[in-house]
Amino acid sequence: MDIRQQNCTQHQSDALGSAGSESGNTAIGCADAAALDITRFGEEEAIVRPAMTDLIFPEVVFPTRRVALVAGVEKIRELVVEHHRLLWHSPLQPIFGNDEKHFWKAVELTADFHAEVCGGPKLYTQKRGHPHLRERHFPFTIREMDRELWLDLYVEALRKVAFPLEVAEEYWQWVEALSIRMINRRSTFAPPVRIPFSAIAHQLRQ
Amino acid sequence: MDIRQQNCTQHQSDALGSAGSESGNTAIGCADAAALDITRFGEEEAIVRPAMTDLIFPEVVFPTRRVALVAGVEKIRELVVEHHRLLWHSPLQPIFGNDEKHFWKAVELTADFHAEVCGGPKLYTQKRGHPHLRERHFPFTIREMDRELWLDLYVEALRKVAFPLEVAEEYWQWVEALSIRMINRRSTFAPPVRIPFSAIAHQLRQ
Repeated sequence: MDIRQQNCTQHQSDALGSAGSESGNTAIGCADAAALDITRFGEEEAIVRPAMTDLIFPEVVFPTRRVALVAGVEKIRELVVEHHRLLWHSPLQPIFGNDEKHFWKAVELTADFHAEVCGGPKLYTQKRGHPHLRERHFPFTIREMDRELWLDLYVEALRKVAFPLEVAEEYWQWVEALSIRMINRRSTFAPPVRIPFSAIAHQLRQ
Repeated sequence: MDIRQQNCTQHQSDALGSAGSESGNTAIGCADAAALDITRFGEEEAIVRPAMTDLIFPEVVFPTRRVALVAGVEKIRELVVEHHRLLWHSPLQPIFGNDEKHFWKAVELTADFHAEVCGGPKLYTQKRGHPHLRERHFPFTIREMDRELWLDLYVEALRKVAFPLEVAEEYWQWVEALSIRMINRRSTFAPPVRIPFSAIAHQLRQ
């Protein structure tokens, strides 16, 4: 089976392809689309489109205990709280519901999780067991662009809390890769944007 | 790279995993989740989660001209119209917007497409070129369960218009496989349900 990822520019039109669409009908540059020979529709021999994947979740490397040793558990918790403060005042707020008290209670649990993953006390798994992150996010629509904003706010939070640069990369490569697994609403053929630490490091030094 | 598809039971909880969630916290049976050893969080050695795919789009075999030769172009158009009549009166109606006149104009274009794919006149590609079906559906949220209803209504439409059984399989295997490529909102790890012709054939004979 030919497993490969399509990489097309996004195209917005209406589902039925009507000429009356507001967004018009723009040509799409897409290798896979080019592979479908529309002149062969309805011939004697069937057109066979090979299997393919939609979205590939790249490898995720979790942090080691070095992060908590260097940054400290309190700094990790502060980072998670600051990130969520930014999220609560962002266009992503609706994902978190109307109950701000409930939200902050849940943020504490998320802080437990991040602290534990980085080598802190095992509070999260004691309380909750397996995190099941993708499943927990299924009820909420998370598009590629929502992840990008979430990551932008992470950079801002890392900077605001002055997260130690020595371990910021180890932490960042985890959240950057893991966040791709939360995308559950595709709006483009393009694979999710990758943001290596080298692309954000200069912002943390400001 | 280890490309495989997770197959878990669906789990609804809140994004932050709070104990205050309405839907509670149910255990999930999931091979992949089991592979993450949560007792190893924050050790000296990093946990590495291998890359994986979310959704695999299976092979799509298009119909041949045999379908139009046996069923006739008018029967194919009638089928598309009947399917959309059912869709318009179904929970999927919001996908098609408020303008019923515009809807029926767009259905004619869809009928052109299906007729051409099955060996009828090349009206669709003359008017519109490449169908770009997945791209055209991106603006609309299409979940796994929406596809299942869409297929149920297809079976009903095939039955209502008495689509010739000799070519129903060839047509069905195309729409059944192709429809998976329209899913753009994941709400479960489970791969999309496959509905072979053998599972629906008895409904067409009624």
